[in-house]
This record gives sequence, structure tokens and C-alpha cells, in this order.
Amino acid sequence: MTSLKIDFKKELESASKGMIMIHDPKLLIKLIIRMIVRKLGVRHAAMVLHDLERDTYVLSISRGETGVKIPTGFTRFDHDSPLIKLFNCKEYQHLTIDRNAIVSDDISRLIWRESVLPNGGASNGDVQKLLYDVYDQMEMFNTVACVPAYHRHKLMAVLLLGEKYDNTKFEQEELDFFAALASDAAMAIRNAQLFNHLKREADRNHQQYLQTIMVLTHLIEDKDAYTRGHSDRVTEYALKISDSLMHKDTLKFSKKFRETLRISGLLHDIGKIGIPEAILNKNGKLTDEEYEIIKGHPTRGVMSLQPLGLEEECVKGILHHHERYDGRGYPTKLAGENIPMIAAIIAVADSYDAMTSDRPYRKGLPQETAIQEIRKNLGSQFNPIAAQAMIELYEKGKL
Amino acid sequence: MTSLKIDFKKELESASKGMIMIHDPKLLIKLIIRMIVRKLGVRHAAMVLHDLERDTYVLSISRGETGVKIPTGFTRFDHDSPLIKLFNCKEYQHLTIDRNAIVSDDISRLIWRESVLPNGGASNGDVQKLLYDVYDQMEMFNTVACVPAYHRHKLMAVLLLGEKYDNTKFEQEELDFFAALASDAAMAIRNAQLFNHLKREADRNHQQYLQTIMVLTHLIEDKDAYTRGHSDRVTEYALKISDSLMHKDTLKFSKKFRETLRISGLLHDIGKIGIPEAILNKNGKLTDEEYEIIKGHPTRGVMSLQPLGLEEECVKGILHHHERYDGRGYPTKLAGENIPMIAAIIAVADSYDAMTSDRPYRKGLPQETAIQEIRKNLGSQFNPIAAQAMIELYEKGKL
Repeated sequence: MTSLKIDFKKELESASKGMIMIHDPKLLIKLIIRMIVRKLGVRHAAMVLHDLERDTYVLSISRGETGVKIPTGFTRFDHDSPLIKLFNCKEYQHLTIDRNAIVSDDISRLIWRESVLPNGGASNGDVQKLLYDVYDQMEMFNTVACVPAYHRHKLMAVLLLGEKYDNTKFEQEELDFFAALASDAAMAIRNAQLFNHLKREADRNHQQYLQTIMVLTHLIEDKDAYTRGHSDRVTEYALKISDSLMHKDTLKFSKKFRETLRISGLLHDIGKIGIPEAILNKNGKLTDEEYEIIKGHPTRGVMSLQPLGLEEECVKGILHHHERYDGRGYPTKLAGENIPMIAAIIAVADSYDAMTSDRPYRKGLPQETAIQEIRKNLGSQFNPIAAQAMIELYEKGKL
Repeated sequence: MTSLKIDFKKELESASKGMIMIHDPKLLIKLIIRMIVRKLGVRHAAMVLHDLERDTYVLSISRGETGVKIPTGFTRFDHDSPLIKLFNCKEYQHLTIDRNAIVSDDISRLIWRESVLPNGGASNGDVQKLLYDVYDQMEMFNTVACVPAYHRHKLMAVLLLGEKYDNTKFEQEELDFFAALASDAAMAIRNAQLFNHLKREADRNHQQYLQTIMVLTHLIEDKDAYTRGHSDRVTEYALKISDSLMHKDTLKFSKKFRETLRISGLLHDIGKIGIPEAILNKNGKLTDEEYEIIKGHPTRGVMSLQPLGLEEECVKGILHHHERYDGRGYPTKLAGENIPMIAAIIAVADSYDAMTSDRPYRKGLPQETAIQEIRKNLGSQFNPIAAQAMIELYEKGKL
């Protein structure tokens, strides 16, 4: 028996180790049940787990030989369920405290003991009735031992164990082992559930943030029928350019570049909201003064968005999307490689969409013509790498 | 010794239990170190923890008798630090594998053994040099035993132990206990760190979302000098009304009501962005047709915001903020208690701000006069509870 004991200790240690690092609750339960069934020679095992949100108990996973299956329709246990009552109610805890479990072979002895001994609170008849019900429930689940797991005196899980392959009875040290394992497992599972909950919350909040930015740009574009969809399209082209540059390993981008570019693309024209509609929708040539107002939009955009605390690269994409490679753009007259790549990409995408979309004073140009314009201005207006990527996208029919 | 062994097992069990549920890393380390020092009769203990981001090791917490303190300036250990090297490098692991630890009393024996035995890879001279350095480092930290904790063969933590109060040497089973404890603790701490990381991410994403909504409203109001700040002020008044109703227990609100009201208040006029500036800023009476366009703003707002998947209550606040208690409002002519409370609150706040702010065609009314208007229209235009709360805020000088 001593060697068995050491095995149990090692099994518990190796099973518990690392459980905390698995943050997928389903995988975790599966691993635990598999370990019990395979390594510890039990024909069948299942875990009933407390469901925090509904305050019921749920049969989470069950594994065993074919034919030894838990009947369907018994996957949810409420507080009146005999097994849950047995472990959950103070007045019954004297029945299981010695063994850390309820074992079906013990039940008739427990019933007998109830008939001769005084008990803690419940009437002896109640206790006997409950024990009979527990016995029936265990039979139904092909279970010979049930081990509870508590956390801060609250029942978190019940491990249901089938017979051992060698048909011997459960030793106390085996039950102690299962009790320790069930407790570790229940906590690890709860931890994983909390983790997933938090992860989903973080993702949801991030999605909400992106959605809000999208709604923001759509609302603003809705004011101007001629630019409707412009920011979405620019973002789409810009992402295609960056994907193709990443794919060809032409440039090294940070992991978050794609996301940053998306936000920058969506917001690049946000500063236009400050421009009077009369100028924005003007049906003729702009005066110098009006053109100055238009030229203020990148700076105004960046200023309005300041409270968002956007990443620097994202801000640069907005601020510099009207710079030119030859330094004759605005607002800062940056030139060549001094223009951040994110802005150079948006600039090409922006020009392409401006040329191909209908405007108050002209129909949109054909794709072919717009691409010719980009080729012509490669190296003067446009960053050669970004422009070349755009041209290739067109040539490959990917626009 | 047998009773001591049982104590250790229990201590480990009770210490490890629940560690996983503590998601504050600092608190967790504190609890563990305190437990070691107090219960296990060690004069002094400290924990060196792996810092994932910088891939160094950091002295996280230290506790012990006065006078037995770790010298400042030694809180960060790089990979060249003797103790870290000893536990981290494969070629030195034979030195500590028997004992699960390095014990200063063993070091001279280990050095002697190195001089007579062949070893795994490092030259014997290197090993001896490292052992001398480890000895010095342990002296510096008043440490007589150091216990490593691994996760997936990676050194996650080193537990530094001072002398025992009874001045006896560490037994192997004590060291085994500390090894198991350090390992459990290191994983629990890593888990807590990941948890906090995720929690901060979720919070940050949510803040970004709220900030984006704020920027959204400010951008839109900026188009119209006369409504600048309107949404912020309406939100502020609405929150004051709901706080006072909550405080007086007049109405039961859900936990999230305050947050929902804030978003609803900020966005209530978002649909106005679709209204031409000529109508919005008109310097005279509106025609019926123009008024119909104005009346479309709650519905348009709700429609534009649809992609956000806002909560139903939030949407109702936007949609119904121009309903009247007598049913003569818009867009759905809801009346009385059929108007959601959130909309009734925004309606009072909105009217108050509209009356007290300057408009193109008139100066704003004095607070007193606006409150008289609200009192006069309590029960006809305004929900009596919301209006009464607003009046009381004014009377208490809280507006």
C-alpha cells in the first residue's frame, strides 16, 4: 500500500500542477476526467459543477466505457437533488465528513447508524429518507462513490466515480486523493471560467470601441452624399496594400499595425466635420481661402481625437495623409521616408478612391485611369513602395 | 517527525487551496510569505519572481525580523546572477535536484564533490566558481536555503529562506514542502498577473469606448456653436436627477443604470447630425416641414447607432427623450408611465438646458425661470418624479 500512496501523491501533484494555467474550462474538465478514468483505473467518471449564474449544478462532462453512460435528461441538478442536498446542507454533513465522500456500499450502514444514534438537527427519518434517495440517484448514474469539492464552505463540484476495473472497494486514501483532486479541479475550472468571462468582456469592449469609430465615420460621411463610404473604402484599400507589403516581406510592420491602420484609415477625414457644408459640397472651384480651410482637416481631426489617446502611429496616419513624397503636401511638408509609412499607404488609398468616386463636379474616373495617375505620380506625389503595391493589386485584379 | 509531516501536508493544502482565487498578485505574495514566516518558524523569507515582460527576476516581497533585511539595490536579478544561473541552466541542475533546493550548509560538500566527481557538461572549475558565488549571494541575503519553482521546465520563482527560529537545519521533507509551495505559489501569482492584465485591458477598452462616444458627441456639437456642450450638460443634469432618485430610494434602478444613462445622455441628440445646418441654425421660426425634419432626430439617431448594439434601455433613452407625459410628444406619442424612466429623466434635463442656454434667436433664460417652467409643466410635459427631482436639485443649490 505504501507504493500506492506515493503514486497517489505524485498523481495529484502532476494533475494539479499546471491546471491553473489552462484557461479553457472545457478542456480542463476533459483532461481531469480523462486522467481519472485512464490512470486511476475507474470504469467511469463524471463531474457535476456549480453554475454560478443560475446557482444550479450541471453535469459538465462524463467519460467511461461504452454502455456505462449517464442517462440523458439528467444534466442539471437543483438544490433539492438528493446528492446536492447531502453535501450542501449542514445537517447532513456528518454523514460524509469521515470519508470525504459518499460510498454506495456504506449507505446501508449509515442508514442503520441513523436509526440508533442521535443526530445534529434533521430528524432521523429525514436523514434515512435522504440516504435512500441518494442511493437511488447513485444507482441511476452507475456511480459507486461521490466526492464533493468545497470552496469557502460552498459546494463547488461533485465528482461521480464508477467502479474500479479491479472491482476492489475504494480505500480511504483513494477517496482523500479524489477529494483533493476534485477541490483543485473545481477551483481551476472556476478560475478558467472567470478568465474566459474577462477575456470575452475585453473583446466585447474592444469590438464596441471599433464599432463606435465606424459609426462615427459613417455619421460624418452621411452629411455628404458624395463621400459616403469613402472612409470604409480607403481603409479597405489601405489594408490590402499593407497586407501585400507584409506578404512580400517588403517592410517590417509591428504586430498591431493592421489594427492601427484600420483605425487610422477610418478616422483620416474626421476633421472634415469642422468644414462648412457650403465649402465641402461646393459645385465649382474653391477659392484660396476655402482651400486653406480644407487643408486644415488633418490637424483638426487629430486635435478632436486627442481625448481618445490613440497610438502615435495611428495619429500620424491621420495627420500626414496629405503629405507628398516630394515634400509639397500638407500640413507639415514632410518628404520621402520622413513621411510615416502608415500615412503614405493611406495617401495612395485616399487618392485612388477620390479619383474613382463620383464627385459633385465630375463622374469618377475608370480604375485604369486612376492607376495610370498613380503610376505617373509615383515618387513625386506618392511613396514608391506604397504606390507600386497599389498598382500590383490592380494588375492582379485584387482591387 | 511523523506529526510534523502531517502538519506540512495540511499546511500545504490549506495554503494552496484558494490561492488560485486571489487575483491580486501583491496580496497573494504577501499572504504566502507571511504564512511561511509565521507558521513555519522561519526568521525571514522572500520571493524572487520571474518578470514575464522583461525576462528578468525580481525580488517581489520580503518579510522577516527587523534587522534581517535584504539590502536595497538588489531587487532585480538577471540571468547571470549566480542563483538564477544555478537553477536555470541545465548543466548545474544536478547540484540541486536531490534536495529540491540549495542549502548553504551543503555548499562546501558540493564543492568538494565537484572536485572528485565527473559532471554533466560545465567544467568542474566553472561549477565550483558558481557555487562560491551562490554562497556569497546567499550570505548577502541572509538566506540559508533557496527553493526553485518551475513551470514547464522554466524557472518561475525562487523562494529565499532565512534560518529557523529553533536554529535546526532544514529537513528534506521541509524542503520538499517549500518546493511544492513555491511551485503552487508561482503559478497562482502568474495566474493573478494574467488576470490583472486582462482586467486592465477590459477596463482600458471600455474607457476607450466611452471616450469615443464623448468625442463623437463633441465633434457633432462643434458644428453648431449654439449647442456646444449641450450633451455633456444634459448628461450631467440627468445623472444628478437619477442620483437623487436612487439616494431617496424613490425608484429601483439596475446596477448599470448610471452607465446606461450616461451613454444615452451623451448620444441623445446624435440624430441631429443628419439635419442640414440651414435648419439647425435657422435664425427665425421653423416651417412645418422644417419642424418635421427636426422631429426625425431621435429615430435617425437610434438608426445610426444600431451597429453599436447598445443596451435596450440606452436606446429607449435616445428614442423617447422628446415624448411628453401627456402623450403629445414624439416620435411615438407614448404617455405617462409608458415612457421609460431613462427617457423621462433625459427629457427634463434636456429641456432645462435648452431653456438656460443661449440660442440663435434668444438669450438663455435664468435658472429660476426655467425651473418655474418645469414646475408649470410637471405632469403635462414632464414626468412628475423626474421633474420634482430637478426642482429639488435647484432648490438645494445643486445645479
